[in-house]
Amino acid sequence: MSKLYKKGLCNVYVALLHYPVLNKNAEIIASAITNLDLHDIARVSRTYGVKAFYVITPYDDQIVLVNRIIEHWIEGVGSVYNPKRKQALELIRVSPSYDAVINNIKIDESCMPKTVATTARPGFTCRKYENLRNELVCSYRSYVLTFGTAWGLPDDFLRSADCILGPIKGPGDYNHLSVRSAVSIVLDRLLGH
Amino acid sequence: MSKLYKKGLCNVYVALLHYPVLNKNAEIIASAITNLDLHDIARVSRTYGVKAFYVITPYDDQIVLVNRIIEHWIEGVGSVYNPKRKQALELIRVSPSYDAVINNIKIDESCMPKTVATTARPGFTCRKYENLRNELVCSYRSYVLTFGTAWGLPDDFLRSADCILGPIKGPGDYNHLSVRSAVSIVLDRLLGH
Repeated sequence: MSKLYKKGLCNVYVALLHYPVLNKNAEIIASAITNLDLHDIARVSRTYGVKAFYVITPYDDQIVLVNRIIEHWIEGVGSVYNPKRKQALELIRVSPSYDAVINNIKIDESCMPKTVATTARPGFTCRKYENLRNELVCSYRSYVLTFGTAWGLPDDFLRSADCILGPIKGPGDYNHLSVRSAVSIVLDRLLGH
Repeated sequence: MSKLYKKGLCNVYVALLHYPVLNKNAEIIASAITNLDLHDIARVSRTYGVKAFYVITPYDDQIVLVNRIIEHWIEGVGSVYNPKRKQALELIRVSPSYDAVINNIKIDESCMPKTVATTARPGFTCRKYENLRNELVCSYRSYVLTFGTAWGLPDDFLRSADCILGPIKGPGDYNHLSVRSAVSIVLDRLLGH
């Protein structure tokens, strides 16, 4: 049991944005839901004790799709076939907008969450992972870690966040991870043992 | 540029096993190739400077499938659409067996690689991540990090490795990550900055 959980302080939420995000030409688009994003990010969120995993899409048909997938795994055949998957997908909440997510968390927690945006692009003033990790241990606030699909979160979105976590890099310059990998690494860096 | 790369010491390989692996009843099976495993693991391997990513499957039709996917991204339309993806998928080598992979690396490197197996199951004598990370910095040997698909690597396979990396855990008991998440976290723990 980690220090975070012993103290019962840590309310970390993950949000996966499908609008507004960038396409490869840096234009604002809405991206499509990817089934494996839901599974992988729900599983890693459950592993690291994330309170809820918000999937944000403005499109009704995409909301229906996410709800069908969740239903299969938490109430349907999938829940019997693989109960561990059920435990993960139970964390998913579907929301039509980022503002609605922030508002939901604000109501649930009775205070505004701190917003943490992520980017693989250079050029932003970024918080160090170790620094944010240390803050999480002793803060009573809630935190929303937001990840962009497609080519990532727009500049305006990043600048409006309380802080930004910068590119995950290895020894070279290549930093084109899938969002599934990025969420996994960020959660391990912030909440791993 | 990391310490590993400044010294030019670090030859880390990633291997993704589709046979022999376990199913949910702990029986030995061969699993099917998953397209997103190839993409996500190639991308994270490229990010952390992995020398090659071996995809191991004994089935001819699955080998053909992997080669078709790679060809699309490194020579076909995909290579123009997304050159960054090309840089990642160029790391993939397809092999019919684990022994063939070890033999290939042995020939390329002129010495036997050290084998590192991974498991999400408890009950094995495991190497600490920090400990292996420190070894990588100052070793001239090559290392093969092997990950199992489906329900993971069999006990015999694990016990035959030079060392084992144990379950990735968060604050609770849930440790059912996708192999894509597991590879991402392990590479970040061993080679991340």
